[in-house]
Amino acid sequence: MKVITLTTDFGLKDNFAGIMKGVISNINPSVNVIDISHSVSSFDVKEASFLIGTSYHYFPRKTIHVAVVDPGVGSKRKIVLVETNNYYFLAPDNGILSYCLKNENIKGIFDVTNKKYFLSNVSNTFHGRDIFAPVSAYLSLGVPGKCFGSKIRNIQRFKENTPLIKKSLKGIEIIGSKIYEDKFGNVITNIPRDLFAKYTKSKKAAIHIGNRIIKDISSSYIENPKNKLMAIWGSFGYLEISACEGSAAKIIKNSPVIVRILN
Amino acid sequence: MKVITLTTDFGLKDNFAGIMKGVISNINPSVNVIDISHSVSSFDVKEASFLIGTSYHYFPRKTIHVAVVDPGVGSKRKIVLVETNNYYFLAPDNGILSYCLKNENIKGIFDVTNKKYFLSNVSNTFHGRDIFAPVSAYLSLGVPGKCFGSKIRNIQRFKENTPLIKKSLKGIEIIGSKIYEDKFGNVITNIPRDLFAKYTKSKKAAIHIGNRIIKDISSSYIENPKNKLMAIWGSFGYLEISACEGSAAKIIKNSPVIVRILN
Amino acid sequence: MKVITLTTDFGLKDNFAGIMKGVISNINPSVNVIDISHSVSSFDVKEASFLIGTSYHYFPRKTIHVAVVDPGVGSKRKIVLVETNNYYFLAPDNGILSYCLKNENIKGIFDVTNKKYFLSNVSNTFHGRDIFAPVSAYLSLGVPGKCFGSKIRNIQRFKENTPLIKKSLKGIEIIGSKIYEDKFGNVITNIPRDLFAKYTKSKKAAIHIGNRIIKDISSSYIENPKNKLMAIWGSFGYLEISACEGSAAKIIKNSPVIVRILN
Repeated sequence: MKVITLTTDFGLKDNFAGIMKGVISNINPSVNVIDISHSVSSFDVKEASFLIGTSYHYFPRKTIHVAVVDPGVGSKRKIVLVETNNYYFLAPDNGILSYCLKNENIKGIFDVTNKKYFLSNVSNTFHGRDIFAPVSAYLSLGVPGKCFGSKIRNIQRFKENTPLIKKSLKGIEIIGSKIYEDKFGNVITNIPRDLFAKYTKSKKAAIHIGNRIIKDISSSYIENPKNKLMAIWGSFGYLEISACEGSAAKIIKNSPVIVRILN
Repeated sequence: MKVITLTTDFGLKDNFAGIMKGVISNINPSVNVIDISHSVSSFDVKEASFLIGTSYHYFPRKTIHVAVVDPGVGSKRKIVLVETNNYYFLAPDNGILSYCLKNENIKGIFDVTNKKYFLSNVSNTFHGRDIFAPVSAYLSLGVPGKCFGSKIRNIQRFKENTPLIKKSLKGIEIIGSKIYEDKFGNVITNIPRDLFAKYTKSKKAAIHIGNRIIKDISSSYIENPKNKLMAIWGSFGYLEISACEGSAAKIIKNSPVIVRILN
Repeated sequence: MKVITLTTDFGLKDNFAGIMKGVISNINPSVNVIDISHSVSSFDVKEASFLIGTSYHYFPRKTIHVAVVDPGVGSKRKIVLVETNNYYFLAPDNGILSYCLKNENIKGIFDVTNKKYFLSNVSNTFHGRDIFAPVSAYLSLGVPGKCFGSKIRNIQRFKENTPLIKKSLKGIEIIGSKIYEDKFGNVITNIPRDLFAKYTKSKKAAIHIGNRIIKDISSSYIENPKNKLMAIWGSFGYLEISACEGSAAKIIKNSPVIVRILN
């Protein structure tokens, strides 16, 4: 069974996500629609980019990932269909696919314009229903990418948010920042495990956040006292700051997370 | 694959919606259950009526739409199954189907009473589980409407919330009001596009909300400055008041939305 | 179609639940995944136990129930697969299955350790993705329980929260307490219907909450004035305290619910 995923900022009270599923099931009754999130912060394209970018590769090959956080709906912004070696991505051309495309080999990008695959009356405010849903459904039926519009070369991408590396006589500092805060208040930083390993090697590193210092990276939450700030390798491969059964995000707010490695 | 939709005020923390799906899958394992919303404001039958009424026709023909916002559960209020040319609707007889039935040709209304299709112990507080779920599942298996109870003639309907038209020597006023506020703070009014067109024709119209005036109808959100009040034709065919990347609902509260057309 | 249910404290904004479904669909594309709740209060194993324990038996036989409220993730806590006459349960060994196992005949408990059925890189923070999802998917494909690890004898269980019975010359008191509060503010007590019947028989009982007294058990919400405290037999078989179209929980807070039966 083919899979379509949905990532939107539509929320779960309104009927927007349900309507998209209605449109999809009307075109392809046997596709499996899976929600990644409908609770992206309104208009927060970067947050959506992170959520879909850390999810998409856990889905079966040829899954169609649809992302609709789209403040430019109704304007002249493009809608793009990206075909990679492994997946399809359908989204407004506003940078939302930046995270996904970091590690994918792009086979083609299409400017989605062919009204044959849209609902007959396209509104100016709900392309999720009128364009994204039907196009994804036709794609799941095997319609080739080129049928939806002409091939284009470029797609918008955000500049990647990477940590700053500061070298001095004393040693090295990796200056990281928050990229996402999860429901538990875990702060996901932009410091990837391999970057950390590259600079620390066998040297001792300490993590500084404001005037707090974390000296070790834990291997489980509960080995720590409740509410005490701790660091752990998170499941997406980044350094995370947590507080056992409490919210690290509330404690550290937007403070930078600095790894200090002494010579 | 047959589709059943669910619209309830059960929320997403409690297990009520999940249990309904369990009961359905136990009777018809291959039906596709799609959520329209489980976050209708508690007991708000009118809100549910709007949400299902603006959704149902995007689903495949013969979809079974189940609506459970049911403050009268356990009392003598009826449960009705409505068969139209295109769809089935299953709901308490409390007006919740008013919006859906405006544009549907009713083939039959059944008073759902046949316990053969209920769970064996019917509670007084959760007919979603004990009646609505199993009845919808049996219906999806092809059990005809008349098997669930006797045919009846009438069903409760709300008086439709339509705008007031006020004519004077100066011109015409269409006095509209909010029917729904979405997650983005867009205010959906009760002024439909065809009514607006009928009265404005080629004349100039201005939209008055409190002491604010909107002179044009925009064709996209982002052509406006952030947070500035604007008007746009919404995706359900009504005039909507919005504020680009902000909340119009917070700005205008429950003020009437008045379209003034000068002679 | 086989069914897997999910009960977690992952929330609906983060992509955790969506990723689990991705992993499952990658291993068994045709299994039907149904959410019981992803909004369990963070780390609240008892709440999850109640939610899954009052849901599981409405699902088809052989349904695989997966519960991931897991503050001990990454530590040495076990992951258990429990096979009963009717269902499978997959959960951390932290008491979360207590409620489910009250009425099930256990055929086998397995200590889930076989990495063959895990994702290749198991994180220390997201076993939902790395262990629970793939193990449940392989189980749904028919892999026998014993393949996932060795048989064990014991599983953690909470002491059941039962009402206190106090007998005196005047009569009997059943001293109950809140076990769950639903979205509507209904307070579900730990007083089951059969226990109530056993002690009251034909005698008159009154329900005391703080200085309020409820003299009758209602058979529907709306037979009561709005916001007035009332008692009703809830759909899970327990005495519930409600307030018609209002929140009983806000009124009574955590007061004990005492049934007084005079001789």
